[in-house]
Amino acid sequence: MEKIKIGILGYGNIARGVEQAIRQNEDLALAAVFTRRDPAHVAVQTPGVPVLHVDDAPAWRDRVDVMILCGGSATDLPAMGPQYAALFHTVDSFDTHARIPEYFENVDRAAKESGHLAAISIGWDPGLFSLNRLYGEAFLPQGAHYTFWGRGVSQGHSDALRRVPGVKDAVQYTVPVESAMEAARSGAQPQFTARQMHTRECFVVAEEGANRAEMERAICEMPNYFSDYDTTVHFISEEELQRDHKKMPHGGFVIRSGKTGENNREVMEFSLKLDSNPEFTASVLVCYARAVYRLAKQGQTGAVTAFDIAPALLSPKSPEELRATLL
Amino acid sequence: MEKIKIGILGYGNIARGVEQAIRQNEDLALAAVFTRRDPAHVAVQTPGVPVLHVDDAPAWRDRVDVMILCGGSATDLPAMGPQYAALFHTVDSFDTHARIPEYFENVDRAAKESGHLAAISIGWDPGLFSLNRLYGEAFLPQGAHYTFWGRGVSQGHSDALRRVPGVKDAVQYTVPVESAMEAARSGAQPQFTARQMHTRECFVVAEEGANRAEMERAICEMPNYFSDYDTTVHFISEEELQRDHKKMPHGGFVIRSGKTGENNREVMEFSLKLDSNPEFTASVLVCYARAVYRLAKQGQTGAVTAFDIAPALLSPKSPEELRATLL
Repeated sequence: MEKIKIGILGYGNIARGVEQAIRQNEDLALAAVFTRRDPAHVAVQTPGVPVLHVDDAPAWRDRVDVMILCGGSATDLPAMGPQYAALFHTVDSFDTHARIPEYFENVDRAAKESGHLAAISIGWDPGLFSLNRLYGEAFLPQGAHYTFWGRGVSQGHSDALRRVPGVKDAVQYTVPVESAMEAARSGAQPQFTARQMHTRECFVVAEEGANRAEMERAICEMPNYFSDYDTTVHFISEEELQRDHKKMPHGGFVIRSGKTGENNREVMEFSLKLDSNPEFTASVLVCYARAVYRLAKQGQTGAVTAFDIAPALLSPKSPEELRATLL
Repeated sequence: MEKIKIGILGYGNIARGVEQAIRQNEDLALAAVFTRRDPAHVAVQTPGVPVLHVDDAPAWRDRVDVMILCGGSATDLPAMGPQYAALFHTVDSFDTHARIPEYFENVDRAAKESGHLAAISIGWDPGLFSLNRLYGEAFLPQGAHYTFWGRGVSQGHSDALRRVPGVKDAVQYTVPVESAMEAARSGAQPQFTARQMHTRECFVVAEEGANRAEMERAICEMPNYFSDYDTTVHFISEEELQRDHKKMPHGGFVIRSGKTGENNREVMEFSLKLDSNPEFTASVLVCYARAVYRLAKQGQTGAVTAFDIAPALLSPKSPEELRATLL
């Protein structure tokens, strides 16, 4: 069997997860890792895999079937997405929800012009959670859906904490409110404020001599990030933070509650409970790389999202095997 | 907007659910109901909709875009599926898991020869549960999946009870074992026997003078249906059965537990809690009718399953709307 040759662009947490996920899939092979750093200083986990500078990527066009773009959504992907879709079939995890339509257009144009296929915004949210929102809305059009996140570490909120004067390091957990989840599941279709759905729990290492009361006030009153939530701040030592809070668990729930017929309540729920957010995201990315490879072979070009990919394309099994074993 | 014209073939519980689901979808219209009974004796819920004999169906080829086949899997669909796929684009809920490959071949041949598209085995299991088994296996290849059904009424097991001598009427509930679900969710990847995953609860109305102890023994020892499970038999009055057990609730859980990276546990879970099994199944069928209509317009023919349908095709929203609102 000819393996699908995967390239990894960028080498952070998601990229390391992609590298590990490839090893769990016999039909995939890691071709090369491309980095903006000095390749001599990047040690990958797979023996024999070349580490190259991103400037060398164009020369690898014939040796990489699908490039997985492991950059961040804030500054990396908006430029990287269109740039590499002009060179490769790509998969990325662009997750700035509000900017997805614009990003889609930019990647779509670059990919179509160069004859490539690019799957954007792949992962679990956007990604699997989006699929479940779509399924829920389609199957139960008279209904409401609810997305709860957590309990898990939010990188964006942790970064926001670290920008507060006096904060040396910090981790923020997003915590879903159990009673709100129960109400969503009840089928009563309640409406919630942001505060009613999630609480925010912060573990903060303070600089020596910093004013903790002042820091706590600054955190709890921070607009967009914390002011709309019940926020708890725990000051802990650097040792505690390193020991207890350096894993990246996450997860969440998509609940659709709707009515059919005269007045029957139907509830659909999808949930994830993840020890490692980046490793699970990476596991999803490699399956979409398989799908992109297959669709590109059929001649499809442009940008697509999880909404456009038939589920069978994600699995290494043949359609016959899938029907016989999983249907 | 031109509506998609849906035909319903057969007029039982699922068909009535399809009729109600069509009303919740503005882009769908019910064209006609076809029955094997005397149409004069079939009263549908939608004013003005023609009720016709199945023999008249071929004459409606130009007036029905997609025919939803609402027959049973045991005896109706094996003949009906290929027969009507030769005349119409179709959707059905064929659910005899072991016979799906054979059924797929037969429908695929008839549909391809006549230039039609047929979505088979649509609903929640097979259907949404199958999708979640596929997603789970693809995203977490080193793992195990578990399907729990219930608490809900199993028609097959209720029918089996009614065949026991002395049983006048009966309803059987399949009940998932809570501790087994917890073990599946724990990520420990336990292995279960059938008995460890589900119990069976039977509500039985006995004929006058029937030997209840003998009936209970016959039920609990019935192979395939009850002997591999812890089964409880409750004898109740006909009034109680009519009052408390004539609804058709169902649901269940698909749990995938797997490992990523060094030893991180990731758990995916999908669940349904349904007041009305046939109405929810019907709500799924009409969305797949929409998808079949769209794919047939693109020229696709043959048999497909839920595995082959890109999620976006199920929604009435445009790809742009979906990306902006649900991704």
